[in-house]
Formats: sequence, C-alpha cells, structure tokens
Amino acid sequence: MVQKKALHLATAIALLGFLQVASATPRDLPVPQTVSPQMQKIIGHKNLNDKIVLDTQDKWFNFIDVINEANVQDVKNALEYYKGVTLDEGTMAGVHTYTINPPKLAKDKEDKVILFFHGGGYVLNKGLSGTYEGICLAGKGGYKVIDADYRVAPEDPYPAAMDDAIAVYKELLKTYDPKNIGVFGSSTGGGMTLALVLMLKDQGLPLPGAIAAQTPWSDMAEIGDTYFTNRYTDNVLVTYDGWLDDAARVYANGHDLKDPYLSPVYGDYSNFPPTLLISGTRDLFLSNTVRVQEKLLKEDVEVSLIVYEGQSHVQYYSAPNVPEHHFHFENLTKFFEKYL
Amino acid sequence: MVQKKALHLATAIALLGFLQVASATPRDLPVPQTVSPQMQKIIGHKNLNDKIVLDTQDKWFNFIDVINEANVQDVKNALEYYKGVTLDEGTMAGVHTYTINPPKLAKDKEDKVILFFHGGGYVLNKGLSGTYEGICLAGKGGYKVIDADYRVAPEDPYPAAMDDAIAVYKELLKTYDPKNIGVFGSSTGGGMTLALVLMLKDQGLPLPGAIAAQTPWSDMAEIGDTYFTNRYTDNVLVTYDGWLDDAARVYANGHDLKDPYLSPVYGDYSNFPPTLLISGTRDLFLSNTVRVQEKLLKEDVEVSLIVYEGQSHVQYYSAPNVPEHHFHFENLTKFFEKYL
Repeated sequence: MVQKKALHLATAIALLGFLQVASATPRDLPVPQTVSPQMQKIIGHKNLNDKIVLDTQDKWFNFIDVINEANVQDVKNALEYYKGVTLDEGTMAGVHTYTINPPKLAKDKEDKVILFFHGGGYVLNKGLSGTYEGICLAGKGGYKVIDADYRVAPEDPYPAAMDDAIAVYKELLKTYDPKNIGVFGSSTGGGMTLALVLMLKDQGLPLPGAIAAQTPWSDMAEIGDTYFTNRYTDNVLVTYDGWLDDAARVYANGHDLKDPYLSPVYGDYSNFPPTLLISGTRDLFLSNTVRVQEKLLKEDVEVSLIVYEGQSHVQYYSAPNVPEHHFHFENLTKFFEKYL
Repeated sequence: MVQKKALHLATAIALLGFLQVASATPRDLPVPQTVSPQMQKIIGHKNLNDKIVLDTQDKWFNFIDVINEANVQDVKNALEYYKGVTLDEGTMAGVHTYTINPPKLAKDKEDKVILFFHGGGYVLNKGLSGTYEGICLAGKGGYKVIDADYRVAPEDPYPAAMDDAIAVYKELLKTYDPKNIGVFGSSTGGGMTLALVLMLKDQGLPLPGAIAAQTPWSDMAEIGDTYFTNRYTDNVLVTYDGWLDDAARVYANGHDLKDPYLSPVYGDYSNFPPTLLISGTRDLFLSNTVRVQEKLLKEDVEVSLIVYEGQSHVQYYSAPNVPEHHFHFENLTKFFEKYL
C-alpha cells in the first residue's frame, strides 16, 4: 500500500511540485537477502518522501488527494484478493464508519469485534482509502472489523480524531463485552489505539480485551533514537521533516505535543490490556515502538513485540502478493485469538 | 562491562598497535535523551573497535589478554555490588565451571538452575572474566547459575565450545528436571544457547524449560540487515570487519558458517522451549535477533522479544550504576520465573 503510494508520489512530484530534493545524505545500503524477493523489491525502492514541504492549505489538499487516491486502489486490490469481504458504510455515534464483514463469521467470533483506526498522520486516508488493513484482518483473521473513519486535519484538528475514536468505542460497549473487543491500528492508528486506552482509563470506562499498536506514532515530536539512526534508512517515512513535522503541526494545532493524547508514550501504562507492538529493523518509528514496550514492561503488562527483518515503516502490510503480508496478518490474528 | 572494555581498549591501542583507524564513515548521531543519563554517557562513547586487525597469533593473544583483564575488573565490581554472591570453581563432565551462588537460595528456587554461556566471539572471556552476567543474574534474580567455562579459539576451535556446552547440560540432567533448567547467554553465549537446543533436539535429549538468547550471534557470516544499517551506529561491535570476521574465521576453522551449530538461525525451531530474545535499536545484531524471532513465530513457539531504546550490542548489561542494568536483569528474572 505505502509502496504503491510511494510510486504514485513519484508521478505526483512533477505534477504538484511540492517536493524538494533534500541535500542531506541518503544512505547507500544493500538490500537484505534475508527477506522474500517481493519484499526485496519494496526495500530497494528509492526514498521519495524525504522533503515534502506542506506550507499552504492548497499543498495539503493536493498531497492528501494524491495519496488517498493511490490507497483506494490498494483497497480495491485487497477486496479482490480477500474475496467475500464486504464493506457496509454507516454511522456510529455520529461518526462515519465502515463495518468490514469477513466472508464467514465463525461461531467463536460472533461475539467479538475489532475496532480499527487507520494510519496517515491524522491527515490522510479519510474514507474508503483508510479501510485497507481492516479488510486484510477480516479476510485473513475472519473478524468483524469496525473502521472508525475519524475526522482528520487540517479541517478537523485535535481532539476531533480522538473524540470520534472514543465515541465509536463507547457505542461498541452497548453491544459487546469489552473483553471481546480488540483495537488495532498502524502508525497514527497505533498511536490512537494507545491514546484511546489512556482516555478510557481517565474516564473510568472498561478497557478492551487486547490491543495491537503497530509502529505507533507514540511521540509526535522528533524524540527517540531511531528518528535519527533510521533517518534515510527507512524508505517510507524517510525523515521526520519529510511530512511528519507538518502533519504534527496541523493536527496538534497549538496543543502541547507532550500531551499523552497526542504523544501516548508519555501516558500511564498501568493496567493496560495485553498489547501487541510491531516494528521493523529500518522503521523510523522503531523507537516509538520500543519506548512504549519499556513503559508496558515496567507496569508488568502482557506485551508482545515483533520486529520484522529489513522492513521500513508499515511495510508488513504491503500487498497480498508479498509473503511478509501473510506472516504479519497471521501474527495479528493469533494475537487476538489468544487474548480475546 | 563492554564499555569499560572499550575504555581499556583505548589505552591498549597505543600499547599493542593492533588497531587501525578505518577510513569508512562513522555516523554523526545525537545521543538520545530517551535513556538514563548514565546510559547516555555510554551511548556517547566514541567507537573504538572499528578496525581491529588480528592476523597473527600474537595479536590474538594480546587482544584477548587486554579484554579479559578489563572484564575481570568488572567481575570484581559486580561481586562488590551484589554482596553475598559467591563463586565455586569446579569441573563438570571435564569442563571447567563456576557455580555462582545467590546470597540466599529461596525455597522455590532450590530445584532450579540456570546454565550460562558467556559472550566474546568464541575467543574472549575464558575463566573468571566470563562470569559477569551470571553473577548479575544470581544477585538480581536469586538463581543458582552454572557458568560453563567452555574452551575457546584460537587454541580450541569448533566444536570444542559446543562439546563443552552440551557436556555440562547433560551433567545437570542428572540432578535437575529439565523443565527446571534455564539456559541463557548474550552474543556468542546467545548463539550457543540456541545451538545447544538444536543439538539436544538432534540427539533426542530433553530440552530446558526456558532459554534466553540475548542478542545472539545467530549468523556468523555478515548476513542480515542490521550488519549494514547499524554499521557505525553500534559503538560496541561497530562493524563486522572490526574483529568479528576474524573471530568467526578462527573459531569455525574451515567449517561452513551455515552449519546451524555455528549459525543457529539456519536451524529448525520446531518445539523450542519458551524463548526470550533481547536486542537494542542500535545493535549490530538486531537482525541476528529478529531473524530468530521470525523462525520461532513460524513454529508457534512462545517467544518474547525486548528491544532496548538507544542501545548498541549488550549495553543492557552495563555496570550496576546504570538504571538500564536493573531493568534488564529484572526482565530476565521475570522471564525465568514465568517459565521455570
């Protein structure tokens, strides 16, 4: 998905002119032979997002349109691959949602549901373009998935996204035992997954049975070791000043980035539900991931960390023709099957 | 330990003249603020091992002597810190051993024992200098630890170390229920921990109850993503061609590095006992660690991975004045308490 995004971006650069080639040093790294040939191709792609400047509203909307359009194509491909998965558009507690139905809901999964938050820096993937990972989990894991299609910036900055996230969760509490609710997301969706639990604790609401915070954007500022060590190593995010800094700015909208609802690494992790964390050896967000693990371990929370060989940010959810896609969605499924 | 080692090396360089400054590019990375001030100092140390050439027997013996002497000092400091821990030198199945006794052996730990293999590229840390991590686990975790002081290269190349490892394990089987035996080690000791289980499976012997393969040298060749991405990021090992390539050569002694008893990542991980894996975001062996995780997950083995923020190779076992030391040995203790 992101890879296709990157390819589309290559075309978009010329068209939209918002990309400036950075003078900083891309690293000359060999492609590891320790991943599948399909993943080798993805890892071998040239960095494209290294210096995107989004300093006007027009540039933002162009950027968002181009990315979202590419991602809609990935959604269509996923629906083609995971035959029988269906999407029902709707509204829960006033929030736009997609109910993603597996081809067949097994008896032991009828009373379970997975709440999903897509990634995209709180700015991308509104609408259909954000449903991809939910479709893959429904198809691979046989779960019913609710995609909370939360509002995004620049139109709707913080706390709109989190307001929508908790509203949908509360709605699910009316139908499901919280122990049977799983929550997951990648990147921004992973950060929101963590922030949701922090919010639920603060409001005294029942916590979900298990959560998967995959390469979570847990620190929205450029704080954490791999923002630097994996700079120009990660070929998806590439650098914090690619577009992340701009996204953080327009979403936070003046709020302190150290607020745990924005940067959940600063939250209190006591009594968290069993948590799955995912990252890759080249991931710019590897530190965003392991800093959360440290906090969970210190609170004796049941935490599982998986780090994928050679992968940059979110490459585990590359298209279904990539073996690592299946390995990942099997790991995610097993996690929810163990704890829900 | 390794840090002190690095400092001692600085002096040794001038004396022994076996270090050549590499022309390759050290990376200019900021020290992360997301670790303790003590760990920041350690991470901020200059790389010193980047180009050690060990092409004669004399250079080897000088190198080994200097490192081992520094490590003996760390052992003395650890014994000073973990008061009440005692060492009994002895022999088991013809192998030199240290029985490391905790200050007090709790009732529920009387029937349990931890077998420990030190690190050092199959060349370093023979004798007292190798006991450090065993002392820390006895002191922190209250376990009785058996340090198998296996033979090392260049004098005793492969398979001497593994012959000694399995001989001591077999000896422990006479006294302990295998389910009550834990095995652990870092780096080379982590690789030996994995190779031991592969050997036990091949010989149809009972497996230990749990193992901790910490930043294991699972691929003795320069294969795996972080050998490259963390080259000159890791300030302990620095590069494969620092001294690892020489150690691999003198230990393997002509054997194929793809033999799973040398590079256990190529082994069969079915039916492995619960396994703890440890690494750091800057670790040259992060891929050596996560490639093993992948194999374990594919065999549905109970595997826990912890990746420490900002740390290079084995920095988690820095001296007891570093908070991360305690976090690590608590994690290791909890793991064995959970599974033994």
